[in-house]
Amino acid sequence: MKIIIDAMGGDNAPGEIVKGVVDAASSLDPAIQYVLVGDEKTVTGCVKDAGGKKLLGDRITVVHADGVISMEDDPFDVVRKKKNSSMTVALKMLADGEGDAVVSAGNTGALYTGATMLVRCVKGIRRAAIAAIIPFERPMLLLDSGANVNVTAEYMEQFALMGAVYMEKLFDIRTPEVGLVNNGTESHKGTPVYVETFERLSANENINFVGNIEGKDIPKCKCDVLVADGFTGNIILKSIEGLGSYFMKRMKKMLYANLATKVSALVLKKELMQFKKDFDASEAGGSPFLGIRKPVIKAHGSSDARAIMNACRQAAKFAGNSVTEEIERRAQFLQKAKPAEIEGSSAGEDQGDEA
Amino acid sequence: MKIIIDAMGGDNAPGEIVKGVVDAASSLDPAIQYVLVGDEKTVTGCVKDAGGKKLLGDRITVVHADGVISMEDDPFDVVRKKKNSSMTVALKMLADGEGDAVVSAGNTGALYTGATMLVRCVKGIRRAAIAAIIPFERPMLLLDSGANVNVTAEYMEQFALMGAVYMEKLFDIRTPEVGLVNNGTESHKGTPVYVETFERLSANENINFVGNIEGKDIPKCKCDVLVADGFTGNIILKSIEGLGSYFMKRMKKMLYANLATKVSALVLKKELMQFKKDFDASEAGGSPFLGIRKPVIKAHGSSDARAIMNACRQAAKFAGNSVTEEIERRAQFLQKAKPAEIEGSSAGEDQGDEA
Repeated sequence: MKIIIDAMGGDNAPGEIVKGVVDAASSLDPAIQYVLVGDEKTVTGCVKDAGGKKLLGDRITVVHADGVISMEDDPFDVVRKKKNSSMTVALKMLADGEGDAVVSAGNTGALYTGATMLVRCVKGIRRAAIAAIIPFERPMLLLDSGANVNVTAEYMEQFALMGAVYMEKLFDIRTPEVGLVNNGTESHKGTPVYVETFERLSANENINFVGNIEGKDIPKCKCDVLVADGFTGNIILKSIEGLGSYFMKRMKKMLYANLATKVSALVLKKELMQFKKDFDASEAGGSPFLGIRKPVIKAHGSSDARAIMNACRQAAKFAGNSVTEEIERRAQFLQKAKPAEIEGSSAGEDQGDEA
Repeated sequence: MKIIIDAMGGDNAPGEIVKGVVDAASSLDPAIQYVLVGDEKTVTGCVKDAGGKKLLGDRITVVHADGVISMEDDPFDVVRKKKNSSMTVALKMLADGEGDAVVSAGNTGALYTGATMLVRCVKGIRRAAIAAIIPFERPMLLLDSGANVNVTAEYMEQFALMGAVYMEKLFDIRTPEVGLVNNGTESHKGTPVYVETFERLSANENINFVGNIEGKDIPKCKCDVLVADGFTGNIILKSIEGLGSYFMKRMKKMLYANLATKVSALVLKKELMQFKKDFDASEAGGSPFLGIRKPVIKAHGSSDARAIMNACRQAAKFAGNSVTEEIERRAQFLQKAKPAEIEGSSAGEDQGDEA
């Protein structure tokens, strides 16, 4: 098993990225090898700084890449202007079979575009989705959480299928419950695309569809997989993130109001740490791209070493459990869109290689 | 000033509704009169039970209505099958000039349908919106929060204008800042309708547009008016509600973990109450329907007497500040949709009376 890491992507790259990989190599399954892609001299220096000198050439190898995709770069730069960037080189290696998974904390749009164009979609899958674990009482996978702003019901049904496979394989959930984000529980609720998705999911015997999930029920985790279009999914995910920070800020203000409350804060220290941990998305690793031929994991831009180590663990599990193979197997039983349903040429294009 | 109240709508009707009105009549501006619509005998009994006997016939009158619109009723029942329901009678009275505002805690869809069909839209306004105050650091009005699942950029621009007028008139904000919900801050983000809305809002000199607002920035209240389509707006509003409850539940669990934490909970009692109050939407009153010719306020279904009193206060302010007149005045300067932009007949229909 070989995991390729974009050493130059993310707010804390390359230092924390490399440190996370050194920690992973030191503590995770010794059968896993790590390939760090980035400026050779800098990255090698970081490996040594992180105490990983003796792992070099053995568990950890460094592959040189010239450039870096920044957060400001256009997503298409990954395949046009910056073909020698660490992200592009990492994805090309994955496409060429020189590794089993890619982890990057870099520009999400670029990683998605690069994964779709270089590694390509699973056969039969029209659009890959970005999935995200929502950190509540039980793990719930939200997808699409930002890649596909314009969707069809066919894409959404595929998101449901891919999410179910992922939760089954990575979280050992037998027949994952799938819910559809909506503005009401009734089957006629939502835009026409949502109404049609409800019909498709209800009719699909291979999907354990539990119905529409309203906003107020999202924290109740009534399902294992929550399907949304990328526009709505992104707003939900980011709102939860923003509200989590806001509540923590308010709680801190409350606990540091005066001497008596400060004493209370000390008493509650353990519980507060747990509370904070529960809302820390990096505990769960990164966001898997589902529907790409090989596992690609997007770690949070602000990832520290611990988050990168968690993402490496997740990548190994993703690659080791035949998730993409199972998605391909099940995708062949899906109902195709009628030609009339596909609006415009771009929506009609199948990104998966049908050859 | 006369406020008409649907006495039979809501989970706690008629008892709490009537009690709220008796409290309002006893404590708010004595120039306000209240008309309670519902089963005459029951409602009159409730007024007496709430200690409002001496207000009857003076500040409070009761108008009889036979039926009740339930939460399960089809929204169109308000104008079709249940024409004698308390909600229908209240709205008809408003349309006929027998009052200045309607407050109801009943079925939202029915109230919106009834308001649109019986009271009708302001001249020049294509679709009325349901607005909601988001309870964070500063009041922020989110609209549409559920009425219009399918929108055009023209509707969304009108939502922006209506929201700005409301915040100006009811919250004394001079040139309210208007933001657009989106999955990124850049102008090209979102669905085609959102991209066009961004263009329209940027070009409109009468709207103080501050740009796209991402989910994570919603709790930061970077604007006074937050524009969304009704599908997305509903999911945002309900998610905030659900997350608020979830955080309170988690916090309680944390505070009641053991004896030491229970003592802390006592110390924090005052701060906890404030925290809870800050997230209690009923403090701000109800959700105003903007774009209807006369003020209609939807109180939360679970409203108690205090929430109803707040909604009555809000209705009086709404009616007393010429909000609808100002919306009509400003709507005439808005850019009309090009005929090609209007898809299908229903989207093209103008609900406002242009005569």
